[in-house]
This record gives sequence, structure tokens and C-alpha cells, in this order.
Amino acid sequence: MSACHSAEPDIRLAAQVFEALRQRTADGPGITRDSYGPGEQAAHDLLAEQGKALGLEVTKDFVGNTYVTLPGRRRAAPMILIGSHLDSVRQGGNFDGAAGVVAGLSVLAGLRDAGLPLSRDVGVVGLRAEEGCWLPETWLGSRMALGLLSPDKLDDLRHVDSGKSLADCLLESGFDPQAVRVGERALDRAKVACFLEPHIEQGPVLAAEGFAIGIVEAIMGGPRFRDAGILGSYAHAGGAPRAYRHDAVAALGDFIARVNAYWRELEAAGHETVFTFGIVATDAELHSFSRVPGEVRFCLDARGCHDAVMQGVRETLAAHADALAQEHGVRFDFGADSGPAILPMDPDIRETFARLAQSRGIAAKSMPSGAGHDAGAFIEAGIPTAMLFIRNDRGSHNPDEAMDLEDFHKACQVLTDFVVGYPEAH
Amino acid sequence: MSACHSAEPDIRLAAQVFEALRQRTADGPGITRDSYGPGEQAAHDLLAEQGKALGLEVTKDFVGNTYVTLPGRRRAAPMILIGSHLDSVRQGGNFDGAAGVVAGLSVLAGLRDAGLPLSRDVGVVGLRAEEGCWLPETWLGSRMALGLLSPDKLDDLRHVDSGKSLADCLLESGFDPQAVRVGERALDRAKVACFLEPHIEQGPVLAAEGFAIGIVEAIMGGPRFRDAGILGSYAHAGGAPRAYRHDAVAALGDFIARVNAYWRELEAAGHETVFTFGIVATDAELHSFSRVPGEVRFCLDARGCHDAVMQGVRETLAAHADALAQEHGVRFDFGADSGPAILPMDPDIRETFARLAQSRGIAAKSMPSGAGHDAGAFIEAGIPTAMLFIRNDRGSHNPDEAMDLEDFHKACQVLTDFVVGYPEAH
Repeated sequence: MSACHSAEPDIRLAAQVFEALRQRTADGPGITRDSYGPGEQAAHDLLAEQGKALGLEVTKDFVGNTYVTLPGRRRAAPMILIGSHLDSVRQGGNFDGAAGVVAGLSVLAGLRDAGLPLSRDVGVVGLRAEEGCWLPETWLGSRMALGLLSPDKLDDLRHVDSGKSLADCLLESGFDPQAVRVGERALDRAKVACFLEPHIEQGPVLAAEGFAIGIVEAIMGGPRFRDAGILGSYAHAGGAPRAYRHDAVAALGDFIARVNAYWRELEAAGHETVFTFGIVATDAELHSFSRVPGEVRFCLDARGCHDAVMQGVRETLAAHADALAQEHGVRFDFGADSGPAILPMDPDIRETFARLAQSRGIAAKSMPSGAGHDAGAFIEAGIPTAMLFIRNDRGSHNPDEAMDLEDFHKACQVLTDFVVGYPEAH
Repeated sequence: MSACHSAEPDIRLAAQVFEALRQRTADGPGITRDSYGPGEQAAHDLLAEQGKALGLEVTKDFVGNTYVTLPGRRRAAPMILIGSHLDSVRQGGNFDGAAGVVAGLSVLAGLRDAGLPLSRDVGVVGLRAEEGCWLPETWLGSRMALGLLSPDKLDDLRHVDSGKSLADCLLESGFDPQAVRVGERALDRAKVACFLEPHIEQGPVLAAEGFAIGIVEAIMGGPRFRDAGILGSYAHAGGAPRAYRHDAVAALGDFIARVNAYWRELEAAGHETVFTFGIVATDAELHSFSRVPGEVRFCLDARGCHDAVMQGVRETLAAHADALAQEHGVRFDFGADSGPAILPMDPDIRETFARLAQSRGIAAKSMPSGAGHDAGAFIEAGIPTAMLFIRNDRGSHNPDEAMDLEDFHKACQVLTDFVVGYPEAH
């Protein structure tokens, strides 16, 4: 299928590392790698051991992210960095995060074995505290290393189990909160030419459509209303004919149906978006089967890849709400918009990935990432960034995550070819 | 406006009785007349006092319903019975229930004053325990008197405050649960020619449309699903594009919107119905703003006046649910249908009411009752029954109930004329 390639990733190594990771962090049917706790530390120790065993450079930054580096000829040139996070949710799966780090390791092992002269350093990073479940904010390891975390978070964020501040978590693990406080940066554009994050897909698309890997266009963003509501008025279900009602749930039903219809229109026009009403609830103190509901609360999370499309989404949601408020005699209150910005992946790297996959005969789908990832922090820091998704239709954050090593292998091949082909002049 | 009428209700008496009732059962801004408790008892005592003061017969039945009777010439002939209940919700309003009893009293006082020869007895009844809030079942006083209550309810129903059984409530109030147990009937078609229940309207229709009184067509009935649900599957909001979702809330939104549209169609076709999704709720243990909801629970209460229409409603609801289950990849589970049967008022009495109102120049609207009333028990017992609504746009079961004595007066005039004109032969 493929022509002669100059280097191949070491997939046997990957299989061993996955198995060791599982054994060292097993917790019931899943694994637990708690951020700045023993589970995450075990994974970092394993990465460091493996790096040393491969004869590569192993370092840590001031917040404990672990780096394994294959030196290139021009050591001062910005490096190519591959990686992801090594923490997990409680009783999560073995691959969310870790697959990206292990991919980097097997790429590096393959490059070392091939003995190719590399113009610049290629590194693997195992990042800390990406999951927001231990310390209640995501991407902490990457954001601290990139100088993106506001220093007051060091004291404000508390570990869910111990109640300790992030600063104390860092100190007790042997790292340096003071460096975060003064705005130091372990990573920036001068040091990192590009960041590449392989990650298992967290949805069923690749499996359903027969692709081994996905090339991520962007981390989706858009409006997110976590505490929206519709206010009407309560009335006796029997005593209030339609024209006299101010029925909050009837209005919400029409609103959801219009959003459903609008979503289909956007899809037909080729715009990838998602709309989720994750929570709906009438007031348990006041609602009854025989009472016209005077209030309903809801969440609406809308995501897309293009700012112009999402601006249209904001306007359309507002227009439907206005029309339905009129029609039903109710008031929509969307509350604060806490939605994330759209974080676009680097178009040049995406194109290169697509070309390299094609030349290897690998079926790759261009697709958005609905979820956030460390890659987002690198994009915020202005570093050219891209992500590869690896087929997995079992979701993530659960012990059932499934990743075929063949698919993983293909992602590693694309990464290897990318590094080998990376232009000298960059 | 009106021609010479042979008798007029005593509205001055009514005003005095309303005031005395309010004083004796005041509880904060409202009134409380607890079923088989001191509040209800105070109202029955007042009714008995008033009956005696008017020189009328005062009796009680074996469950404590109070009767005041103006004797007619043929004492064995079935009587015309006017009335309603004297209990109330906690801190309710002065008129829900009581207005129907006081109306009967002012009609009787007027008839007595007019000294007209009546062919048959005309009675007023103050019923017990209509509200389901003290003992968890409605229309208890009327249903027990009519022999309609299953005897096991005597032991099964417990007072919400004391925890005592209905049987003990009866005994302690000096009444006779044994009579209920053996299926005795204080009231039946041989004793009651017709039952007439005046009641405040519990919705805004009469006030909004400029009618003083309403002539009730039927107590609405129809399907009621108190524990319905839609089952889909949970998924990551970002990771699951539309085609891969089994979104319970998206399906519910489409369902509510289709019911809204169907309701408008029924209205346009002249069918009076109401549809209420009084409760909607995702699962607080599992829902999240960023999770496609895999389940949502809801109540749906649908009511109408005609069995054929409501049969169509049942079929249409099922058809929409089937189509949407298919479209969204979810399952609808409506659970048990606990909806009440439609209880139609007597068409002859309704026609007579309409004619009498017209001859008095009273604006009367034919309309359904969305809520249940003691009249329903009399209909179930096969007694010709009708209801008059009296304008009140402040709802009921709250201290703000408002009833204009002028409107009340008009209802009493129609009742008076009805009694006076009641055909000898019936």
C-alpha cells in the first residue's frame, strides 16, 4: 500500500507502555490518575523511565510536566512537541490523554531507531491536570507552562479530595508555584515550533463512517447558557384555556423544536454545529401535573467551528426567543453566556496531515472537536497546533474506552512522517 | 331590565354569611377549613345556625354533610338540591366551595320570603371533604353520601396532619363510618331530582370575555400521564453530532411543539381542550450542561369535553410519539393513564339555565370546567346535574379569590327562577 518510508513508529513499545500504565494506575475496572496525586505521578514516572531507557533526554518544568526529548542538530531552534495529558477522571479509561503521550513516545523511539538526522529537537510532553475534575479548572498543566493561568487561581482552586490549594498541590509534589506567580513560561512560541496532540475520539463518528483517524479542524466554541430560564405564570391546568396561558414549558418546547429545525438547516448548508439542552427542569416546589408551569430552567450549549456561523446562531436563538416570548406571553432570560471561544487548528499542519495520511493510504476525516483539549491552550498561546483523533466509539471518561492499536499505529505513522518531512527553514 | 319575577334571592343574607364565614375560619390573609377538622366544622355550624334562623329544616347525613331544606307540597318527591363543599385548602379563599352553599341559602331565603307554593322540597347541602389536600382523595363527602366510595378507602386514606384514617376522622367527628362500609346511600336519584352546584370560576375567561356567569358543559376529562418519560442515551455534548444522538430532551421539545400545534388545530375546529406539561425534568444525578440528555421525565395532562375528540387526542399523541421516537432514536414511555372520564352536565338543565339567564338579561357563557367538582360525583351517580360558574379571575385556592356580589346575585337569580319554574311532573 505505502511506498518506502524512512521511519516507522515503535508500536510494540506502545503496547508495553499502555499495559504498564494500566497496571500501575488500575482502579476497579478502570484506571485513576488523579491530578497532582499518586495516579498521575505514577504515569509521569513511567514516562520518565521509558525516556531514559530509550537514551533520550528527560526533563520536568516548574509545574511537573514531563518532557522526553530526541535532540536535533539545531538545539536552539524551536522544537516539534507531541503530547497530551497523563491525568484521568476517577475510574476512567486507559487512553484518554495517555494515548497522545504514548504516541509521541513511539514516534520518538522509531525516529531514534531510524537514525535519521533531525534538524531540530522533537519532544514528547506528558501534561498535568488537564481534567477539571480534581482541581476545578481544565488544562492546568499546559496553561501554567504557557504562562496563561491567572496567578490568583493558585490560591483559589482547591483539590476536590484534600481541599488543598493548587499552590500547595504543586509545592507538595515538589514543583514551584512561585514560577507561576511571577508569570514564568516553560513553553512559548520561541521554544515550540508546533504542538501536535493525538487523542482518542470521544464520539462515534470515525467508527460509524469507517475512518481510522480524524484531523481536527477546530475545538468548537459558541454560546453556552448554563442558567437560562423562561418565566410565565402559574395557573390551574383546568381553568386556563390556551389564550390565557403564560406557559413556560409550552414556550420551551417550541424553542427546542425551532433549534432542532435550525440545526438541520445549518447541517444542510454544510455547517457543523451541535446544540444541547442538557438540563431542563420545572420548579419542584411549585410544579404539579395539574398546574400550568410558570417557570422552567434550562441549559443550552451551542458549539461550532466558525465565528461567523456562531454569530448567526446567537442572532437566530435571540430571534426565536423574542418571537416565542411574544407568542406565549412569557419572558426568556438566558443569563450569562459562559461559552468558550472557537480555537482553530493550524491550517498548514492540517493540510500536511491530510496529504501524509493519503500518501500512506490512511482514511482520515476532517472533523471538529466538540470537547476541549490541551491543544486549546497552545492555540491560545499562539503556537501552531493540530490534533489527530483516533477512532473510539465507546466515549471517554469511562473504563470502556476502546482503541485499536492498528488505528493508533496509523496516527503515529502520520506524526512520524510529519516530523521527518518538517521543513528545515521553519 | 327584567320583567316582574316572582322571587328574588336574599343577597344581604349572603353578604352576612360570607363575612361570618371569613371571621370564623380566618387564617392569616386567607381562610382554612380543614376537612373533618375545626375549620370545616365551623362552616357547617354556621350553615346549620342560618338554616334554623330562617325557620328551615336542618339535618345531617351519616358522614356529616349538612342539609337545610325548604319543604315543598309533595315531601316524598325527589328534591332539588343546591350546594357545594364547605372545606377549603390551607389558607385558601373565602369563596371556593362556600359560594355554592351560600348561594343555595340565599335562594332558599328568597323563596321562603316570597311564600310561593313549592311542589317539592328544595334543599341546600354543605358537603364535606371535597379538597384532596387533607385526606388524599377528592369529593369524599359527596361520594360517601352517594354510596360511591369503596369501603377500603375508610382505612386507607389518612389525614395529612394527624395520620388518622378516614374512618377515625368520621368517628371522632360524631359520624358513622359503618354506614359507608355497608354501602348506605344518603343521596340517590330517588331522593334527588337534580343537583345544582354554583362555584366561582377558577380561570380568567368570564372576566376577560365580559360574562357574569358561566353555564358548565362538562367536567373535562382525558388522558393524564403523571409519570411519562423519554429514554435515549447519554453522550458527550461535544463528541456526538446530531445523527449520532439519542437526545431525550430534543425529542421532548419536538413533542411539546407538535402538541402545541395540534392544540391550535383543535381550537380552530371548535374543540375545547387543554394540554399541560406541568412537570419536566432531566435526571439531576446524571444531567449536565455538556451532556446529551439520555432521559427526561414529564407529565402530560390533556382534557376535553367530548369522548370522540379525546379519543382522537389519544391517537394523535401516540402517533406523534411514534414518529419522534423513530426520528430521534429514543423510546417514549407514557406510563399509566390516570386521567378522569369526561363528566357531562345535564343538557336539559343547561338549556333551561341559558334561557333563564337570557330572560333576566344576564350574560352567560357556555364553557367547560377544567377542574373537578362535587357535581362530578352526582353525575357518576346518575343524578341530573348542572353547574353555574361565577366570574373570578384571581384563580382559587388562594386568599386573592375575588367574587363580585353582583355576579353572585345573578347566579342566584337564575337558580331561583329555575326552582320556581321547575315542572310539576318531574
